[in-house]
Amino acid sequence: MARINENYLKLQAGYLFPEIGKRVHEYHSKNPEAKVIKMGIGDVILPLAPCVIRSFHEGVDEMSKQETFKGYGPEQGYEFLRHAIAKNEYRDRGIDIHEDEIFISDGAKCDTGNILEIFGQENTIAVQDPVYPVYVDTTVMAGRTGNIQKNGYYENLVYMPCTADNGFIPEIPSEKTDIVFLCYPNNPTGTTASVKELKKWVDHALKNDIVILFDAAYEAYISEKDIPHSIYEIEGADQVAIEFKSFSKTAGFTGTRCAYTIVPKALKGYSSGGEKHSLHSLWYRRQSTKFNQVSYPVQKAAAAVYSDSGKKEIQETIDYYMENARIMRESFAGIGFEVYGGLNAPYVWVNSGKGLSSWELFDKILHEANVVGTPGSGFGPSGEGYFRFSAFASRNNVIEAMDRLKSLNF
Amino acid sequence: MARINENYLKLQAGYLFPEIGKRVHEYHSKNPEAKVIKMGIGDVILPLAPCVIRSFHEGVDEMSKQETFKGYGPEQGYEFLRHAIAKNEYRDRGIDIHEDEIFISDGAKCDTGNILEIFGQENTIAVQDPVYPVYVDTTVMAGRTGNIQKNGYYENLVYMPCTADNGFIPEIPSEKTDIVFLCYPNNPTGTTASVKELKKWVDHALKNDIVILFDAAYEAYISEKDIPHSIYEIEGADQVAIEFKSFSKTAGFTGTRCAYTIVPKALKGYSSGGEKHSLHSLWYRRQSTKFNQVSYPVQKAAAAVYSDSGKKEIQETIDYYMENARIMRESFAGIGFEVYGGLNAPYVWVNSGKGLSSWELFDKILHEANVVGTPGSGFGPSGEGYFRFSAFASRNNVIEAMDRLKSLNF
Repeated sequence: MARINENYLKLQAGYLFPEIGKRVHEYHSKNPEAKVIKMGIGDVILPLAPCVIRSFHEGVDEMSKQETFKGYGPEQGYEFLRHAIAKNEYRDRGIDIHEDEIFISDGAKCDTGNILEIFGQENTIAVQDPVYPVYVDTTVMAGRTGNIQKNGYYENLVYMPCTADNGFIPEIPSEKTDIVFLCYPNNPTGTTASVKELKKWVDHALKNDIVILFDAAYEAYISEKDIPHSIYEIEGADQVAIEFKSFSKTAGFTGTRCAYTIVPKALKGYSSGGEKHSLHSLWYRRQSTKFNQVSYPVQKAAAAVYSDSGKKEIQETIDYYMENARIMRESFAGIGFEVYGGLNAPYVWVNSGKGLSSWELFDKILHEANVVGTPGSGFGPSGEGYFRFSAFASRNNVIEAMDRLKSLNF
Repeated sequence: MARINENYLKLQAGYLFPEIGKRVHEYHSKNPEAKVIKMGIGDVILPLAPCVIRSFHEGVDEMSKQETFKGYGPEQGYEFLRHAIAKNEYRDRGIDIHEDEIFISDGAKCDTGNILEIFGQENTIAVQDPVYPVYVDTTVMAGRTGNIQKNGYYENLVYMPCTADNGFIPEIPSEKTDIVFLCYPNNPTGTTASVKELKKWVDHALKNDIVILFDAAYEAYISEKDIPHSIYEIEGADQVAIEFKSFSKTAGFTGTRCAYTIVPKALKGYSSGGEKHSLHSLWYRRQSTKFNQVSYPVQKAAAAVYSDSGKKEIQETIDYYMENARIMRESFAGIGFEVYGGLNAPYVWVNSGKGLSSWELFDKILHEANVVGTPGSGFGPSGEGYFRFSAFASRNNVIEAMDRLKSLNF
């Protein structure tokens, strides 16, 4: 008799985005004339850069001729793409990452979920609160937690609250932890960690043989100086951290699909007998057994991001979104909200300061201004009272949404 | 202290294809003049069909304009592709599969590995022997087996020998089993199962609440009548089977990446309390949490396979490979080998009939004819003495390889 993985039954039924969809749908069916502006989901809207498109077409053309046709590719991804990443994302910033420490994949979401497979079930995992839901849900699905409790926390998962009080940088947990998910620039809060703050984490991990799973998917949006673009800017991080990055938000690849994960060769995990094992070897085995790499024309398109014109073109797109973020920041500040993020990330994280819950704020803004954002409490209990707005929207919609919000009475 | 998943340490170090690579490399470095013909790995060589290329380019062009740009796509894949699959692969053959039972993915390899995640650890899994190594390795990596034993079998995994004696169709195992991997047309043996033989399995699964994981990645190569193209041709299979199919071998997508998995809504698994749960819902949750769909232009390219010209063009490519298979079959028969497969699959499975082990045959053919195939024992103990040749090669190479083999003394 085939038995199901009962850990799936622990997952909360009311997932954030379906609940948002339901409330918007209900409102819309009662108010069919309303022009609802959606600034909730973090999906890009601007097209791929011209030089990415050119390179994508070239890759397709190569698939049309026997001499240049590509079947199964190299198991970590094509060398031309890994080289471009190693050079531009790391070595040009003075970070010593080699091509063979890079694994191309079809998404940082997949990789942050799948990475747990190479770690034993006995590890205790810590996550930030609020948190990108995928880290928690995949941990639950893999049977690494108990049931959800009344406070919204799963048993046997360590939560690290991130609020304005601690500048959205978690304290090192007092409980024993073995694996820590950190995300900077942060989704959902849009905040960043300084070198000093990341160093605290790396030093703690070095001292306690902890592995940090560092999600840097929004790194391209960093505009301020002295904000680390990679955890490997911190000395010793190559011995404790796996880093996840993506072309999704950097270059508008949410529908094109290409990302990469760095597993340094210096990084080790332990067997129950205390022997050290290379996590790079384990991830190589995982990926070569259960994955078959990214479409060749997509890898070719991704490499174009690092050409001179590619860098210029994707920066223009990033600037467009970040100008949206600036408008949003100033508008929310103008109506008296507390405003965080939006300087080095495409998310603005706001709090009405009037004691409204996240869902109360959601309903008020939907009903009175026909604007949709994401309730902060959907990302975890410490997000209560907060609200996430995404800068991935057209300029006209951003301006109109902000004008409507300014006319409300909070 | 971060602990590794120690199940990875159970995996056999000498994986088949690296060992082949090593022996070929050694031979080549001692004999740099030798023109080695590789007929081992099952990777396609002919370019994508013209209409697939056209559609691929159109998809890329849509990504270049804001009005047609695509970000995150639907969680099961685009409806246009799922509709084309449901109609052409199923409904036109009288099989009642709906669009929302189809999950687009980036590979059947990924899906056959990941599918186990929705099943409890307490299930006993059965595999054919010889077997596509991914089923076994992913089962081991997930901690669902014990250690490997001297006979080459992992503890707590049920092996079902498939040899000429049983026509490469396994007996129903005497041990309790909950989940069964079946692959037809079979990799590596190239053999097929009749409706009657599959019915035996479906009836057994219905009676015992077993789930069949049916890998039909080579279905497009079926040329004989009355061979089932899908397990859902068998009545009741929608209550017991998940089916995996791919564009990789069908349309040369090994480097382009697109596949699909059918999880019928009628299919259930059981909780420990005996309640039935929809496996479709569990797989939907798994895929929407840990996967972000296939690149839009790739999905668009895959849909072109079902256009009138697409069907004609991919059939020409399949015919080319199958003519290779015919030449190989006749050549091996001519030199007195036992020959199986190659009629409804791009693999020819041979046995020298002279008592040579698979690796003895490998070394003899490599050294004396400079031809590379895949030793059958690499797919499992019951493959000992057998050898797999792939028809994914150029006609000239096939003819030359066969000529060289004819001149050997077996």
